[in-house]
Amino acid sequence: MAQPPMSAYQRLERRFARIAAIGDALGILGWDQQTMMPDGAADGRGEQTATLSVLAHEMLTALEVGDWLAEAEREGGLDMVQAANLREMARDHRHATAVPADLVEAFTKATTRCEMVWRTARADSDFAALLPSLAEVLRLTRETAAAKATAFGMTPYDALLDQYDPGARAERIDTVFDALAADLPDLIQRVIDRQSVEPPPVAPAGPFPVDRQKALGETLMRQAGFDFTRGRLDVSLHPFCGGATGDVRITTRYDEADFTSALMGVLHETGHALYEQGRPAGLESQPVGRARGMAAHESQSLIVEMQASRSAEFIGWLAPLARAVFGGDGPAWETGNLHRLYTRVERGFIRVDADEVTYPAHVILRYRLEKALVAGDLALADLPGAWADGMRALLGVVPPDDRRGCLQDIHWPSGGWGYFPTYTLGAMTAAQLFDAAASADPDLRPALGRGDFGPLVRWLRANVHGKGSMPESTDALLVEATGRPLDPTVFRRHLERRYLGA
Amino acid sequence: MAQPPMSAYQRLERRFARIAAIGDALGILGWDQQTMMPDGAADGRGEQTATLSVLAHEMLTALEVGDWLAEAEREGGLDMVQAANLREMARDHRHATAVPADLVEAFTKATTRCEMVWRTARADSDFAALLPSLAEVLRLTRETAAAKATAFGMTPYDALLDQYDPGARAERIDTVFDALAADLPDLIQRVIDRQSVEPPPVAPAGPFPVDRQKALGETLMRQAGFDFTRGRLDVSLHPFCGGATGDVRITTRYDEADFTSALMGVLHETGHALYEQGRPAGLESQPVGRARGMAAHESQSLIVEMQASRSAEFIGWLAPLARAVFGGDGPAWETGNLHRLYTRVERGFIRVDADEVTYPAHVILRYRLEKALVAGDLALADLPGAWADGMRALLGVVPPDDRRGCLQDIHWPSGGWGYFPTYTLGAMTAAQLFDAAASADPDLRPALGRGDFGPLVRWLRANVHGKGSMPESTDALLVEATGRPLDPTVFRRHLERRYLGA
Repeated sequence: MAQPPMSAYQRLERRFARIAAIGDALGILGWDQQTMMPDGAADGRGEQTATLSVLAHEMLTALEVGDWLAEAEREGGLDMVQAANLREMARDHRHATAVPADLVEAFTKATTRCEMVWRTARADSDFAALLPSLAEVLRLTRETAAAKATAFGMTPYDALLDQYDPGARAERIDTVFDALAADLPDLIQRVIDRQSVEPPPVAPAGPFPVDRQKALGETLMRQAGFDFTRGRLDVSLHPFCGGATGDVRITTRYDEADFTSALMGVLHETGHALYEQGRPAGLESQPVGRARGMAAHESQSLIVEMQASRSAEFIGWLAPLARAVFGGDGPAWETGNLHRLYTRVERGFIRVDADEVTYPAHVILRYRLEKALVAGDLALADLPGAWADGMRALLGVVPPDDRRGCLQDIHWPSGGWGYFPTYTLGAMTAAQLFDAAASADPDLRPALGRGDFGPLVRWLRANVHGKGSMPESTDALLVEATGRPLDPTVFRRHLERRYLGA
Repeated sequence: MAQPPMSAYQRLERRFARIAAIGDALGILGWDQQTMMPDGAADGRGEQTATLSVLAHEMLTALEVGDWLAEAEREGGLDMVQAANLREMARDHRHATAVPADLVEAFTKATTRCEMVWRTARADSDFAALLPSLAEVLRLTRETAAAKATAFGMTPYDALLDQYDPGARAERIDTVFDALAADLPDLIQRVIDRQSVEPPPVAPAGPFPVDRQKALGETLMRQAGFDFTRGRLDVSLHPFCGGATGDVRITTRYDEADFTSALMGVLHETGHALYEQGRPAGLESQPVGRARGMAAHESQSLIVEMQASRSAEFIGWLAPLARAVFGGDGPAWETGNLHRLYTRVERGFIRVDADEVTYPAHVILRYRLEKALVAGDLALADLPGAWADGMRALLGVVPPDDRRGCLQDIHWPSGGWGYFPTYTLGAMTAAQLFDAAASADPDLRPALGRGDFGPLVRWLRANVHGKGSMPESTDALLVEATGRPLDPTVFRRHLERRYLGA
């Protein structure tokens, strides 16, 4: 007797599970590349990741996948989750079929090499050394964007955005960012003026041994609900959350003279990790079981780091714990001082060290520059100059070298063009979600004062993590969770309340 | 104008390079699984490795590969290296086409799970807990062996052997091992009697901090020529040499009460690593560029650990260095004592802790047991009893529990049936290669007395590492390097000279 034949939808599920397994393998290889791999292995690793990327691409773009998608549409009979899964499969397939396999392979190789060059170029503040390999990455990025733009009927830059935040469009981002940029210099000035008449925060004196920083970071990860049987904490130059399904790996970098930045960095990545660890059970290998997108992802890191962990309530719990861990003593360890330290607003050069108020300026700069580079309106060789101009206009400061300027981020060397805006879209989304969660559970803020993330994380599990990609876009997710799409005034109100006491 | 079409041989080269890249990815994932992966990630990792293994298997067994192999034979015009490469490709293809893809996938999943169970079962000395998953691995091993036996026209166990040491056959191994086993109890007794009238070696007193052990291990790796820009040293429960082409990763495990075993373990794995780092340049992605097989591989670990590093010359250089690193003092640190310690012969339970003289007894036991298990002459449930009987007969000792008995090795849980004999075949091969190298270069032994592995490694680069799989078998390699095939009397003479002063 023959087995009953699989439906087209079942074939698709099986295919996408295999693609997800390759993606997970690439996730572990990517983590390894940033944390463990010896430098001399870069070329070989490039071969490995290129080969696996091409295979996944071939499996996704194979002719039968298009046939199965059409057939599954015709067959019908899917429940809501399956229908959403089919929609996400079709979206993946459309993105992938737009780009030929040899371009995918060339792009992977070029970014692997460029990342390695960037490590040295950044240390040496040598933009000229990076220029040739970054130009190659940009060239291949523009080719990719052009191919997708044709397939989707949108602009090349929108096609890049859509990879990271489905439905995001530059036209709408321009509106939001331009409005923010218009007000931001004034807001920053008012906050700095207000903080100038408060007692200046004092940095606790180190050294802070790495092993104790790591132990405290792990304690906070556990408080927030991170599951160490399905994840790790390690060290890399640029902190990230990576790894694989059920094996979520975050990284940080330690400074023995200052524990505060690594600590908040760990909480930031923990927010990402909770999203990954909380994906809908049983759907982990399917497109609908993935996080909704990178803006939604960033909202989860920022809701933990910015909304929860920098709140006065949580700092009240954290300050005495940190004092005990490091054996600290004196006024630098008082709760009020630590809170002022963690909400200090300063004009700086480095995005990852920026505070909540100036951070959008860093993002808007990068967004505008990458849009111009992709459009061909800005030559890559002119990037350092354009960077200086943009920093002057948005933040009123100019970095003294490229190490603290356009060489500081891994995103462009690693091919992540169109990614930057998700940081600030995420910050706005985080504010809106936190606002809704705190309204729904009056114990949420008091619980943070007991070091208890439970009420927040339970709300996020139900309203964000466990939904995977069932909502069609970040806005659809926000409508389900908060009753309305992204409302930038919530973020603005959050900043004014926290920083101006308004 | 059309490009000139690729020859069948060129297509094969390209296909095997992609297969090698997947194999390298699996190598890094395998390393990660032993050194970094959280326990809860085992199932997901099983999916990843199974998926990649199936893909590599599909790429190797695809119909066109058979066509290309036949066509390349017909086309001819290959140089010697290409002809050897084609021979190795055909061998790989024959091995792989013998086994259906779903069996490969089931085998990979079963071994991944069984390895995880084994970690706990071994710690708990709980053979019953391991039995169901090990029975599944054995069942799938027998299926695999039966499929290959049919394809190659050999016995199922020979088909397993052939995977690890091309050309090895149980009939010949039986002859060599039976002869060794007949003499071994007597040889062991004579060595123990002789050592009983020498001053007993004294173990240097610890503790020996892990960081200093690691630093000393890395120093010795550098002395031996290990390239840290293309490799690493880490920690795992069971030491191994793994990783990828150009990214060779070895592991060890540290005991703070005893530095001596980790140190020799590092030198052992360094021998493996030198073989991998010394593979023929430009051929790394091709079958002919691989190490000749696992017996040849073990010969390289043992030539560094046993032949070179436990020689009186090298211990004379090592003893004062170790004393300085650990701040040691007193008679335990004298060269003579350390040499007696490193050549001490004792009847023990643990293979990886066994000395050079008793080690073959551990291997012969496992060889006989796995041959019987694969043949179905021994039931898996009876393994602990058969282990005790075999230990009593070969070594005169019986382990008090399964942790120190049949649960001690990862090989069977991880699916490495047919692998064990390569250890003792490797020891014999090492003795024969070292003998030839020392005859060719009179400075080889004096150089070891200066901590200089240069003469030995240069000879190995030229006569073993750089040959890859150009010789057809381990015996062919030995003929090229030493003028004759494996001659077990050289190993026997080495033992008598080192341990009986004969």
